[in-house]
Amino acid sequence: MSSKIRIAVDAMGGDNAPESQVLGGIQAARERYDEIEVLLVGDENKIKEIIKSQNCSLDNLHVINATEVVTMHDSPSDAFKTKPDSSLTVGMKLQLDGKADALISAGNTGAVLSASTLMLGRIKGVSRPTIGSLFPTETGRTMMFDVGATVDCRAKHLLEYAQMGSIYMNYIYGINNPRVGLLSVGEEKSKGNDLTLETYKLLEESGLNFVGNVEGRDVLKGSTEVIVCDGFIGNVVLKFAESVLDLLRAKFRQYAAKSLWNKFRVALSYGTLKEAIQDFDYQWYGGVPLLGVNGITIIGHGKSTPLAVKNMIIRAQETVSRKVNEKISEAIKTN
Amino acid sequence: MSSKIRIAVDAMGGDNAPESQVLGGIQAARERYDEIEVLLVGDENKIKEIIKSQNCSLDNLHVINATEVVTMHDSPSDAFKTKPDSSLTVGMKLQLDGKADALISAGNTGAVLSASTLMLGRIKGVSRPTIGSLFPTETGRTMMFDVGATVDCRAKHLLEYAQMGSIYMNYIYGINNPRVGLLSVGEEKSKGNDLTLETYKLLEESGLNFVGNVEGRDVLKGSTEVIVCDGFIGNVVLKFAESVLDLLRAKFRQYAAKSLWNKFRVALSYGTLKEAIQDFDYQWYGGVPLLGVNGITIIGHGKSTPLAVKNMIIRAQETVSRKVNEKISEAIKTN
Repeated sequence: MSSKIRIAVDAMGGDNAPESQVLGGIQAARERYDEIEVLLVGDENKIKEIIKSQNCSLDNLHVINATEVVTMHDSPSDAFKTKPDSSLTVGMKLQLDGKADALISAGNTGAVLSASTLMLGRIKGVSRPTIGSLFPTETGRTMMFDVGATVDCRAKHLLEYAQMGSIYMNYIYGINNPRVGLLSVGEEKSKGNDLTLETYKLLEESGLNFVGNVEGRDVLKGSTEVIVCDGFIGNVVLKFAESVLDLLRAKFRQYAAKSLWNKFRVALSYGTLKEAIQDFDYQWYGGVPLLGVNGITIIGHGKSTPLAVKNMIIRAQETVSRKVNEKISEAIKTN
Repeated sequence: MSSKIRIAVDAMGGDNAPESQVLGGIQAARERYDEIEVLLVGDENKIKEIIKSQNCSLDNLHVINATEVVTMHDSPSDAFKTKPDSSLTVGMKLQLDGKADALISAGNTGAVLSASTLMLGRIKGVSRPTIGSLFPTETGRTMMFDVGATVDCRAKHLLEYAQMGSIYMNYIYGINNPRVGLLSVGEEKSKGNDLTLETYKLLEESGLNFVGNVEGRDVLKGSTEVIVCDGFIGNVVLKFAESVLDLLRAKFRQYAAKSLWNKFRVALSYGTLKEAIQDFDYQWYGGVPLLGVNGITIIGHGKSTPLAVKNMIIRAQETVSRKVNEKISEAIKTN
């Protein structure tokens, strides 16, 4: 292998695996031929068949066999142990063995989280790894940490999320000194629950660009680039956000079904709606980072398309090349 | 006064007070002439002026003078004490003195909550009063408790919310044996945080129609009529939901600004969007209930229109006539 950045792809993880994973891997290997090696991990025969169907013979595209598959029915916490020859475990092991620089997976999120945390370990000083998720805003985008890695957080965890999130938004999205907000139920310092009141003090003294509490209504306003909260609430808000669009689509359908005239108007407007809300579309973002582990893991939506997979691979490449983990390690050391 | 149900209106509370409040009061008094008395509480001169401008001479419409106004800048917890002659305090006192059966207010929510809880007291056995908020769903509507009355809940509180919420949805919305969901981060019983794991057990044994955990993505799906959660998360989700629509409107505007053709399509589709999402519009719901206090309080959005105010008054009437508090008292007694 060369000095290119090596990205392992969990080719069996995801609703449309291995198709989406292999096609996305091919696209990334082609577009970034001089920069990356793509390691497709999973059922060798199936993967090679798809590659063959694409008439692809890129020498920066590799296949690594793994005979097992972690499914949504496997226990997240120990799937990587009970299925040692799964694409997830084998892919993760590549990082451990120094044969890959990063892993991307659109499989069972809990299993990816556990495998990453327990196999790679945490960056020294990090109490809890965190999953971030990007939200579109009226002026750009903001990333919320945590959206489900830890459901009963302490103030110290939220401080670390703010530090890691600021570094990620700085080095991956090029936002200098990102504004950090603390998700709460009122703007005033005195508003919140026990966790946020304590976290507020830590953030004030953190040296980060802390802008204070943000409310639910501020998430999409564009007043922050990093929002920190307990993983329980972050997870609820993230999943709720996705479902608002589902409801709107359902309402549009119901409205269209009422009359031919309505149908006509909806037909005309549906494209507008779609284009207007495409910022909500996960596939453009290409996965979310798991920060705080001794390695790089990018987690994708189960429904990831080839485009989303390609974007995840590029995101992983950037996270490696821009030395995000080294920056995190330095920042956390000073706590 | 007659045997009609007497609804006090905090005529000075709300962004468009007293106009919206007085106009809404007049509409309600007219529509329900045989059933209700409306008591408009606030600046006598201003209120009478608006009534006069409407050529209104209904004898079930009364004005009660109050010289002070609780604003958004007043401390929620003691505004009712520091401003004893405010429309809120005077209106609440009418209930205490047996001169009104309910109060509606679109003013400072925290102040209304404190005044209600501390002046009226709690129903015997209720640990914490709760504010519910209605969400549209793909098939109907569901009400979330709590959306901000208590930010650090215990399992017992959530159980009581489920009991009170079930009664409210039954007697006010006519839903027999409403389905109760517990907001969490996974459907399985084992998923959640310390609070939800403990609450799950209480709800299982409650005799309510408990359907298990619901995730953020299920809120709008229509699989429940009552959802319980900590007031911190309920408040964040409620405010977040409101802002999604703001973001969509902003995206539509940005999209329209790109070209004349886009502008044309947005113009055609905007009405569709508006009609499709009108279920999200608070004014149709007419306020949210504060449950668990020894009296009836309906809380409105600061931006309440006359229509919203009228709906709040009707909601208050129903809450009195359908004896919601008596049912709650009976249910809680058996805990």
